[in-house]
Amino acid sequence: MTVQKQAEAARVAASTLALATRGEKDAALHAIADALVARSPEIVAANQRDVAAGREAGLTEAVLDRLALTTDRVAAVAEAVRAMAGLPDPVGEVIRGSTLPNGLQVRQLRVPLGVIGIVYEARPNVTVDAAGLCLKSGNAVLLRGSSSAVHSNTALVEVLRGALADRGLPADAVQLVDPSSHDTVKQLMRARGLVDVLIPRGGASLIQSVVTESTVPVIETGTGNCHIYVDAAADPDLALRILLNAKTQRTSVCNAAESLLVHADAADAFLPRALAALREAGVTVHGDDRVRRYDESVRPATEEDYATEYLALEISAAVVDSLADATAHIARYGSGHSEAIVTDSTRAAQQFTAQVDAAAVLVNASTRFVDGGEFGFGAEIGISTQKLHARGPMGLPELTSTKYVVTGDGHTRS
Amino acid sequence: MTVQKQAEAARVAASTLALATRGEKDAALHAIADALVARSPEIVAANQRDVAAGREAGLTEAVLDRLALTTDRVAAVAEAVRAMAGLPDPVGEVIRGSTLPNGLQVRQLRVPLGVIGIVYEARPNVTVDAAGLCLKSGNAVLLRGSSSAVHSNTALVEVLRGALADRGLPADAVQLVDPSSHDTVKQLMRARGLVDVLIPRGGASLIQSVVTESTVPVIETGTGNCHIYVDAAADPDLALRILLNAKTQRTSVCNAAESLLVHADAADAFLPRALAALREAGVTVHGDDRVRRYDESVRPATEEDYATEYLALEISAAVVDSLADATAHIARYGSGHSEAIVTDSTRAAQQFTAQVDAAAVLVNASTRFVDGGEFGFGAEIGISTQKLHARGPMGLPELTSTKYVVTGDGHTRS
Repeated sequence: MTVQKQAEAARVAASTLALATRGEKDAALHAIADALVARSPEIVAANQRDVAAGREAGLTEAVLDRLALTTDRVAAVAEAVRAMAGLPDPVGEVIRGSTLPNGLQVRQLRVPLGVIGIVYEARPNVTVDAAGLCLKSGNAVLLRGSSSAVHSNTALVEVLRGALADRGLPADAVQLVDPSSHDTVKQLMRARGLVDVLIPRGGASLIQSVVTESTVPVIETGTGNCHIYVDAAADPDLALRILLNAKTQRTSVCNAAESLLVHADAADAFLPRALAALREAGVTVHGDDRVRRYDESVRPATEEDYATEYLALEISAAVVDSLADATAHIARYGSGHSEAIVTDSTRAAQQFTAQVDAAAVLVNASTRFVDGGEFGFGAEIGISTQKLHARGPMGLPELTSTKYVVTGDGHTRS
Repeated sequence: MTVQKQAEAARVAASTLALATRGEKDAALHAIADALVARSPEIVAANQRDVAAGREAGLTEAVLDRLALTTDRVAAVAEAVRAMAGLPDPVGEVIRGSTLPNGLQVRQLRVPLGVIGIVYEARPNVTVDAAGLCLKSGNAVLLRGSSSAVHSNTALVEVLRGALADRGLPADAVQLVDPSSHDTVKQLMRARGLVDVLIPRGGASLIQSVVTESTVPVIETGTGNCHIYVDAAADPDLALRILLNAKTQRTSVCNAAESLLVHADAADAFLPRALAALREAGVTVHGDDRVRRYDESVRPATEEDYATEYLALEISAAVVDSLADATAHIARYGSGHSEAIVTDSTRAAQQFTAQVDAAAVLVNASTRFVDGGEFGFGAEIGISTQKLHARGPMGLPELTSTKYVVTGDGHTRS
């Protein structure tokens, strides 16, 4: 089936789903969770075919690990779907409302976006997460996963569609788009009018190609060149704790720190300890001359280092002469994801939060907190680094649009 | 100067403007209003050159009227700018906030989008309106008006920039983009990373070309193929009043009615009177056979008629057998702008408002009310007919993005 045909079927399904009650949607989510658990043997078997093929194709162990599903992992995915059933339904929420001077009643309600396309890489749990979030928010979804997960995704989507049909909801609300050629991504990008929004999740090159080629509106996600700025007025202990957490607690994620900026006045007290601790944690540091003065094992940083999202045990570092130099550096190299200042000065904190243009700005906290789960959204479809529609962690409300409902009793305009 | 250079200068201006207080921005708005009034002789003189050139080039009287500025019109534009100063500042508004279980404080604040590009047609008042709204919301603006208004817009932008500079704000927050070639629109559309959003205002073909070609995110505005559906349970008097108002009160606007749907059970009571009243008001009706049965002067409607936004004293019309047929017709031909039902049945009203997918759905009220001014927004940059970011009339909040500010005291993630 062509993507066009799939998108048309999704639109039909979306118009039904938009009218489904919370009760109907939550029942379907529970049915999905039950079916995932009940059918986990066949899901795991399908996944093993993908893992075997991936190993043969020379995928790294890290990628194979992200690809792998076990009975426990399927159970965890099912649990996440049950948790979505517990979240409030964003659809129908009245976000503004008033009675106009002429008596007209105006309400602005949340409504589903319609059809959402998601283009993503290896991890098959995204298939279920995304489908669950789209279902809960009343949207149909077209899932364009990775060809390396094709058997897993086919098995999962079959389970999802079966559970929807069992609960009387349209199976076409969840469809897998053929991952075997790049052409299907292109078709998704050109399905303007049928697909309401495209969310690419994955590496920077995937996101860039979707963002520049798509005529369907896009929500850009996930590139995080995040900075920790240690201010002149920072407590070195606190700064060290935050730096290590942001850099090393999990390196492969977009909210991990990738660059360290230290105010010149804090460098003597902070940098020797920080560099030693980073070395001990196995982190390679790429620093400017002022950083390297403290530790000759620090490698010289290039322009490219400052622009790099390592997603690994590496970090770039520089000494800056002022908070303004720090924010200028962040404006130049940052990706607008999450930026942190460590300081005891309220004035510095205020200046930093006002001047830094990013989805999230943190004061005395690790960048790792910028996450839908941590923010209490219950679930997350991704982290937007663009300014339009949604910025930062996207939960259920970000998967909705709005509609004005205006009620009168024969009102005419004069 | 190239558009690229202008956009770079706008970004610098935007970073200053983002930090301007409401007091500073409002003072600049008043300075703009004062300067517009003080310098209205030169503005009107510049406009007369445009009008003379337009007349020579054979522009219609309607277009020439939209182009023309008089001292009174300039005064009205200045008054609108003063009114913007009275509106609340959207920047800094906290729209969500909580303290997480771990004690982290999370606030989601409104921040400016950054640099906004506006591509529009003849009316020079848009130049001032758009600049005022962007200034109030802390955004820099690149104005790409029509070549037919080049002298007017040059004079207006000079006044705006002078007033900004007088109040210590960056003049480059308001810049006119060369209207003499289409290439400058193309450059705006390719200025991804420098321009945060592009808002095309004008005819359907302009909007379509921007929407399909732009790599800068776009907010689609203004196409309104709006329907009035007269339900079986409609009061014919009320329906007639609403129909005439929506069709004839002002025909050239996107929230005017362009199509009439009448339930078969209401046709006998309603259509003869409605068709007579429309004829009397000078409206040409294009109807299906069931409409034409009531009045032989009704022209036969083609597929194209139902898809047409006439913006004139013309309307398409059809008889439908059910509310479901009405909503199906609207789903097929509507542009997602404003759709009205006239009914005395709460059930029909509820079904219509739930099923019709549009920026605004009205019950027993004229579509002409769908307007930022009528909704009490104080001002409007356009009416979005897309679902992402903003839908319906866009006021100041729609010209903002958000930023999460997260405050801890050494919080790390475990």
